[in-house]
Amino acid sequence: MKRLAYKRSKKSGLPPGSTVHIGEKKSDVVKIAVIDYDENGVQEKAVQRIEECFAFRDRQSITWINIEGVHDTDIITKLGEYYGFHPLMLEDIANTQQRPKMDDYAEYLYIVLKMIFKSSLNDIVKTEQVSFITGLNFVISFQEGVEGDVFEPLREAIRNNKNRFRVMGADYLLYSLIDAIVDSYFGVLENMGEEIETVEDVLILNPESQTLETIHRLKRELITLRKAVWPLRELINKLQRNETSIIKDHTKVYLRDVYDHTIQIIDTVETYRDMVSGMIDIYLSSASNRMNAIMKVLKIIATIFMPLTFLAGVYGMNFKHMPEYEWQYGYPLLWLFMIAISGAMLYFFRRKKWI
Amino acid sequence: MKRLAYKRSKKSGLPPGSTVHIGEKKSDVVKIAVIDYDENGVQEKAVQRIEECFAFRDRQSITWINIEGVHDTDIITKLGEYYGFHPLMLEDIANTQQRPKMDDYAEYLYIVLKMIFKSSLNDIVKTEQVSFITGLNFVISFQEGVEGDVFEPLREAIRNNKNRFRVMGADYLLYSLIDAIVDSYFGVLENMGEEIETVEDVLILNPESQTLETIHRLKRELITLRKAVWPLRELINKLQRNETSIIKDHTKVYLRDVYDHTIQIIDTVETYRDMVSGMIDIYLSSASNRMNAIMKVLKIIATIFMPLTFLAGVYGMNFKHMPEYEWQYGYPLLWLFMIAISGAMLYFFRRKKWI
Amino acid sequence: MKRLAYKRSKKSGLPPGSTVHIGEKKSDVVKIAVIDYDENGVQEKAVQRIEECFAFRDRQSITWINIEGVHDTDIITKLGEYYGFHPLMLEDIANTQQRPKMDDYAEYLYIVLKMIFKSSLNDIVKTEQVSFITGLNFVISFQEGVEGDVFEPLREAIRNNKNRFRVMGADYLLYSLIDAIVDSYFGVLENMGEEIETVEDVLILNPESQTLETIHRLKRELITLRKAVWPLRELINKLQRNETSIIKDHTKVYLRDVYDHTIQIIDTVETYRDMVSGMIDIYLSSASNRMNAIMKVLKIIATIFMPLTFLAGVYGMNFKHMPEYEWQYGYPLLWLFMIAISGAMLYFFRRKKWI
Amino acid sequence: MKRLAYKRSKKSGLPPGSTVHIGEKKSDVVKIAVIDYDENGVQEKAVQRIEECFAFRDRQSITWINIEGVHDTDIITKLGEYYGFHPLMLEDIANTQQRPKMDDYAEYLYIVLKMIFKSSLNDIVKTEQVSFITGLNFVISFQEGVEGDVFEPLREAIRNNKNRFRVMGADYLLYSLIDAIVDSYFGVLENMGEEIETVEDVLILNPESQTLETIHRLKRELITLRKAVWPLRELINKLQRNETSIIKDHTKVYLRDVYDHTIQIIDTVETYRDMVSGMIDIYLSSASNRMNAIMKVLKIIATIFMPLTFLAGVYGMNFKHMPEYEWQYGYPLLWLFMIAISGAMLYFFRRKKWI
Amino acid sequence: MKRLAYKRSKKSGLPPGSTVHIGEKKSDVVKIAVIDYDENGVQEKAVQRIEECFAFRDRQSITWINIEGVHDTDIITKLGEYYGFHPLMLEDIANTQQRPKMDDYAEYLYIVLKMIFKSSLNDIVKTEQVSFITGLNFVISFQEGVEGDVFEPLREAIRNNKNRFRVMGADYLLYSLIDAIVDSYFGVLENMGEEIETVEDVLILNPESQTLETIHRLKRELITLRKAVWPLRELINKLQRNETSIIKDHTKVYLRDVYDHTIQIIDTVETYRDMVSGMIDIYLSSASNRMNAIMKVLKIIATIFMPLTFLAGVYGMNFKHMPEYEWQYGYPLLWLFMIAISGAMLYFFRRKKWI
Repeated sequence: MKRLAYKRSKKSGLPPGSTVHIGEKKSDVVKIAVIDYDENGVQEKAVQRIEECFAFRDRQSITWINIEGVHDTDIITKLGEYYGFHPLMLEDIANTQQRPKMDDYAEYLYIVLKMIFKSSLNDIVKTEQVSFITGLNFVISFQEGVEGDVFEPLREAIRNNKNRFRVMGADYLLYSLIDAIVDSYFGVLENMGEEIETVEDVLILNPESQTLETIHRLKRELITLRKAVWPLRELINKLQRNETSIIKDHTKVYLRDVYDHTIQIIDTVETYRDMVSGMIDIYLSSASNRMNAIMKVLKIIATIFMPLTFLAGVYGMNFKHMPEYEWQYGYPLLWLFMIAISGAMLYFFRRKKWI
Repeated sequence: MKRLAYKRSKKSGLPPGSTVHIGEKKSDVVKIAVIDYDENGVQEKAVQRIEECFAFRDRQSITWINIEGVHDTDIITKLGEYYGFHPLMLEDIANTQQRPKMDDYAEYLYIVLKMIFKSSLNDIVKTEQVSFITGLNFVISFQEGVEGDVFEPLREAIRNNKNRFRVMGADYLLYSLIDAIVDSYFGVLENMGEEIETVEDVLILNPESQTLETIHRLKRELITLRKAVWPLRELINKLQRNETSIIKDHTKVYLRDVYDHTIQIIDTVETYRDMVSGMIDIYLSSASNRMNAIMKVLKIIATIFMPLTFLAGVYGMNFKHMPEYEWQYGYPLLWLFMIAISGAMLYFFRRKKWI
Repeated sequence: MKRLAYKRSKKSGLPPGSTVHIGEKKSDVVKIAVIDYDENGVQEKAVQRIEECFAFRDRQSITWINIEGVHDTDIITKLGEYYGFHPLMLEDIANTQQRPKMDDYAEYLYIVLKMIFKSSLNDIVKTEQVSFITGLNFVISFQEGVEGDVFEPLREAIRNNKNRFRVMGADYLLYSLIDAIVDSYFGVLENMGEEIETVEDVLILNPESQTLETIHRLKRELITLRKAVWPLRELINKLQRNETSIIKDHTKVYLRDVYDHTIQIIDTVETYRDMVSGMIDIYLSSASNRMNAIMKVLKIIATIFMPLTFLAGVYGMNFKHMPEYEWQYGYPLLWLFMIAISGAMLYFFRRKKWI
Repeated sequence: MKRLAYKRSKKSGLPPGSTVHIGEKKSDVVKIAVIDYDENGVQEKAVQRIEECFAFRDRQSITWINIEGVHDTDIITKLGEYYGFHPLMLEDIANTQQRPKMDDYAEYLYIVLKMIFKSSLNDIVKTEQVSFITGLNFVISFQEGVEGDVFEPLREAIRNNKNRFRVMGADYLLYSLIDAIVDSYFGVLENMGEEIETVEDVLILNPESQTLETIHRLKRELITLRKAVWPLRELINKLQRNETSIIKDHTKVYLRDVYDHTIQIIDTVETYRDMVSGMIDIYLSSASNRMNAIMKVLKIIATIFMPLTFLAGVYGMNFKHMPEYEWQYGYPLLWLFMIAISGAMLYFFRRKKWI
Repeated sequence: MKRLAYKRSKKSGLPPGSTVHIGEKKSDVVKIAVIDYDENGVQEKAVQRIEECFAFRDRQSITWINIEGVHDTDIITKLGEYYGFHPLMLEDIANTQQRPKMDDYAEYLYIVLKMIFKSSLNDIVKTEQVSFITGLNFVISFQEGVEGDVFEPLREAIRNNKNRFRVMGADYLLYSLIDAIVDSYFGVLENMGEEIETVEDVLILNPESQTLETIHRLKRELITLRKAVWPLRELINKLQRNETSIIKDHTKVYLRDVYDHTIQIIDTVETYRDMVSGMIDIYLSSASNRMNAIMKVLKIIATIFMPLTFLAGVYGMNFKHMPEYEWQYGYPLLWLFMIAISGAMLYFFRRKKWI
């Protein structure tokens, strides 16, 4: 629900296929990094101008172009023209408010999904959009370029040819990228799990209005997660069933594994949602219990003074003939009587378990 | 839920296939505009009588007839007779209370959907019905003709042959029209998103009964949106799977894009619904908290005066033998005692966190 | 939920295929009317004995037998024997507590659905069961025969051969009958829509317990509607997909139209249900708000008198040494002081927005 | 939720295929009755030992063996060995806590469902499990043997060859048995319907805590019904689609009829569930309204006495200079004033509609 | 929601296919037991090193290797290498936070599910993960090795060749293992059923805040169960439809039986969830009723003293001319009057059923 500087609606009125950046501009520079590898070796370089990457297109080796920052639509357009990408896809890359999805353009696949991370600023769960274009021998990834880098371990694996990484195709690279993103969800979820536990411990003993705010934040964050993860599942399922030659059969076992992970994430998210909803009810009922307990005590104090005040009133009356006035011990007797009444009432309330 | 001048029920008792206008008559005149184009050029004209459009039917070029105002069933009937349209379809065009749908009549397709806009009058979300009839080389569009014109940019695109618009067929024109309508949903949604944010900010700090009204209005508007957008999704899906020669294969990529947009809109609408429901609960609980806090304070004031009033009563009694009466400093001592009691109670309540 | 004179359970213990009337007997006489028509002419007559209709069976022309009153199982049995109908179907006709459905008996179709109307007696939405048996050249309709007649316009259309009605087959007649019934739903729905609007207007300003009763009645009526209309949709869908020669292809376009209407009705019913549910919540919350507001005012009055009563008590004490008693203006000063206290409290409460 | 003497868990640790009785033992003796019939005649006998039934197996005629009491696993085992039944099925028969289902063992079908009845003891809805094994020429039915006998009318029909019952096969017998059970559901439902009506009438006028208990009992009973009837529907659907030669085509029309009945039962159950849920809300809100009304009246009484008590306190003060004390008519004037104040407050509250 | 020592997130950053133990380490030693059997005999031994099991791989007889403890990833890796298992599967075995699932690796099947048991420590429902790898002639099972042993009866059955167990293949062994686990669910469910009953009995008579905690624990436990049992159903369904030669046709009848059991468990879990949700509502409403009843009684006491205190105040006034003061029996008369007023109020409240 962040206040957007650039909104989706600014595209209204434009003909289809216009590449316009939609979303917050999260950094100024655009970083472009290329890794090109095959069984025999790796070539890695950071480029300034997108044109420097074009040479890799026609090689047999696997090329991974990583672009951080999608607000510079120029780069996207140039890339698109050189590779012959569909204009609608370029439009989608620049629009950071996409729903996770997979589009099959026969010669290449377009995949868009959401990275989840706790903002280092205010500890709130945020999403960042990541897009992938995969062909037979290349993967181009687009990030918004905000914080963190979950892809570094993959670069390591490529450099060291861990688990014979470099023998596998571009589809395995794509899988590894998606897997890295999905894995990062678990951390966020565990974090939320701990927060939920903490709230639960506090909830019954000592509920405060701040607790309610935490619960509502958790609820909102779960909505964010849900919106990211449900379509993700669909996406991976579609990828698994893809019939083109881009996704090879032996990679599908791996995709099934990621698929299982997304299902597990969905399961956890739904369980958390259930728990958080329940927590609101518990909070409200225990807050109302606390309030009622206070009211009851106050009311009981008032009720105990009722007959006492009445009696004091009675013996303040000015009738001529009130025999009690003349009694030697009238006054202390009355005190005793009033104390007895108070005691009896307290005893009665206690026995009724009202106190 | 607007009070309808002309209701659906007035058709009860008529045999099927009777073209009757149902809905509010939103303007008096009916505006008819024709654009006829092919690769080589564009011909544009505003006509008075529908018969002037008939000449375009048998040309190879693409013809777009736009009719604003559906209350004049005469025009619809004439057009229907000349083009040989099915009477049930003509009936549907005149009925502005349709559910979005797509009907396949083999030689032409009938599509009806809802435009969404914020009424300039009272800022409430309203819908306007738009119908399309598409054949191989024509699109006929029917609007209720209320406010705004989301089709103007398309006319521009046709005139300037933007993105080689004029090379594409009637199906691409249809897609562009639908896309323009779907795009306009985003604006309304962003607007609602901002309103929801505003309400959320106010909600916990300073809830007023007016806030509740805003929430209920938002809820109603989301119902309106939902009713428009769920069947829209179905409609576009059906269009995508259409087997006739009217929708060509290369247009289906574009339809998939609109389909993704509708899914995104549905997602947002459902998320908003969740949030708005949650907001009602927050409102109620925070209103009830505020009320309880007031009650507690009032009750505490009353409770503090209870023993004081009692003591004052005691020393207003008329017993003969009350030693305190004779004490030199009886009166000021009592005052001190009463102040001490009040202080003790305040301290007790404070320590218990009741104040 | 009406108290039934004749219940479904009276069939327990009977072997299958026993035709027994179940439901209220709504009128004493059974009215039988026959219309027989083809392109060339119409023959219309009201008959006393069902046997008079039998002659029409073997003619080429379309025969519509309309029977009002299903409590006379004799008529149903005779008809069934002559036409060779399945005993289970005859059983179903006599049972007025059916769920709308379509049964395909190869040579004829059995359709049962619900007519909806506002009872003229107490303005409550009621249902009446209507059954149709359709063969290649006949339609037999069974009504319970309570109020109103939505079929009269159809008779008119047959007599005058409106829209070339008489050229169409028995399936078109069937469609027209169903359409007439479905159309009558819209009237009831519009009526409810208006009631809902009225309630909504009253709800926030001036909720009364009577309002709650109206809401609950609406809710119950919507349940009735729902039970009638959800299976209706299924029924028409099944009819549309029917493979026998009874339903011709060109009639299926018309059935699609009725299908769209039922979907629209379902949509409206579900929207109303949502709104009515929401209304109960609004009612409860605004009733509770009203009550709380009253309590708060009463409590504030009590709180203002608390210190005043206390002060009056203080100056009713009988201590020997109370200097204030001797003051010349003690009494008026006290009054001033008490007025000042009340004023201060009122000001405080006002500033806190408690009043 | 009945306390079970013999529980499902006692089977833990046994290898699969062990026939163990699970559930309450509802009677001591096991009653076995055989009816063997064909077109020409009926043979009926009550047997002591299950072996006496074995002779019927190889006859052409239809044999119906009815066994009341499933706690004697010996009988079940012997029968199973002679007929060559699968051990898993025998296990299922002895386990009275089955979910309704249909198992196809190619040469015979196993069906288990629930009979519903109002316990004659405490008027609470209970279930009894009934199992059927059907082959080409036999039906073996197992009941728990508690109360009532819904199969007697069928025996009558067989004896008298009603509707040419004896010409039909074992599948028609099976259908009739299921139909008899399903029919008995309607009685229970009507009973609940009446109870719901009664509760509804009482609910708004005169809600008592006993009403709440009735509602909760109804809710629990509906859960029981639901658990019996949802899988029943699935079961009959499966039976209808069965491809073996056991279920003949002409019997499937009858199964469709039972299927419709189960759908109707499900509909009613779901409607009742909706209504009962709504009733809890109505109960709570009307109970809370009643309570609030009482509180308001008490509060108003207290508020009216507030200023009066204050005034009485004022004129109990002991200031030297209080002119009112000297007035001739001070005392009666004060009474008049106090009565006037009370009247004014009552008028104010009445006008505000607080009383 | 247990606090995990080793978390899922520690895998973030590792390339796919890394076998890392995730979850609590529940015991130190890893127990390995092998049973090898065929029709002719059984060989049983507990081994220290996993390599001792390798010899069994190439025999015709059925081998069951049971490994308790999955934290020693060395063992898993060695086993995997020898048998040629997929690295992703080894990764899954070591990860004890899996969702129940079945993966088909053509030559062997991987199955993971959850055992449910009441912790002997604190009586809370816990889960333990169990994995199975099944090939044509072997089953390898992995347990976390916490408490209990539900497989002992199976070992007995193998030793004694009960029900000709040793003739069946590895798939039957797999089935028996799954069946043993599923059977153990029933015990836990019955236990919960009894707890629910106990809570229900207490709920209306005597609700305490401890009751609420029990309800919330039950709710959480049901969430745990649900998460274990819904995917289990899917798993067994998939197993039933498996097309490889590992699962033979005659075993599928048995799998259908387990499938029915899981459905029954799901049914019960869902019913319990419904009941537990309802119980929270009952608890809240009866707690609020209790509180309101107390408030009402206190309020009524206060209200009765209101006029009495007022009267005492009146006769404490100091007007010169108050005739009552002079009356002989003024004082006792007033007492009588006050008693009469109290009685009248009590009578009024009683008649209104407020007490």
